[in-house]
Amino acid sequence: MLNSYFKKNEALSAPIQLDLNTTLLQLAYNEAGLIPVITQDATNKRILMFAWMNKQAIELTIASKKMTYWSRSRNKLWIKGETSGHVQTLKSMAFDCDGDAILCEVDQTGSACHTGREHCFYLDIDLDKKQVNVPPSPL
Amino acid sequence: MLNSYFKKNEALSAPIQLDLNTTLLQLAYNEAGLIPVITQDATNKRILMFAWMNKQAIELTIASKKMTYWSRSRNKLWIKGETSGHVQTLKSMAFDCDGDAILCEVDQTGSACHTGREHCFYLDIDLDKKQVNVPPSPL
Repeated sequence: MLNSYFKKNEALSAPIQLDLNTTLLQLAYNEAGLIPVITQDATNKRILMFAWMNKQAIELTIASKKMTYWSRSRNKLWIKGETSGHVQTLKSMAFDCDGDAILCEVDQTGSACHTGREHCFYLDIDLDKKQVNVPPSPL
Repeated sequence: MLNSYFKKNEALSAPIQLDLNTTLLQLAYNEAGLIPVITQDATNKRILMFAWMNKQAIELTIASKKMTYWSRSRNKLWIKGETSGHVQTLKSMAFDCDGDAILCEVDQTGSACHTGREHCFYLDIDLDKKQVNVPPSPL
């Protein structure tokens, strides 16, 4: 599971810079060529959604600054907001220590969730009552 | 990909409550029985790490309030901080709209990353220079 490309950067006495294209080749894509992506609101730091990208989607997102995912249900590239207008403008992107996940901060236009809710993580667990609270939809 | 259990809660005119145990059975675990978990600092909202849980890990996390993941490299349950002392105390948990990801807010003791850095997403991309900036390790 551990990739030596990332392993060698764990202990550093001074900052270094890696080439982006070389790093993209080293990410821990799964057997379908996909890597998990966490999308966070750059302003209020809320987690908006969780999705997947392939290498091309990462490259298109960086080039266009428009969040572009791989839709596993439609099996194709998916520019977020292409039909709804609820685009996400990329503000920052980071990889984690072992190169198996991506964190993107974005400016969100409209609602992030296709249900009309502001974010996708609306199924909130009441840890004491062992219940899942689901809020009404604004649509 | 869409699960009718979650689909039917997309459009709601009033809030509802779901049974937690029933919902846990409906989550979109992958072929290895795992679901992605995003761990966020409950105080400063920083994304600390990304990992995986199976159903048992979710149940243990809820029961103990100590974040318990499934280690894919060691192929076993992994109580975060069990050896390092850098435990994560669960403050809130939520599922996303289609039940294929979990968001947990935690109180982090010590550093979240095994490299000693405060969080795992320290490989920061310079979108203009097409470089990845890696900060030094505190260890």
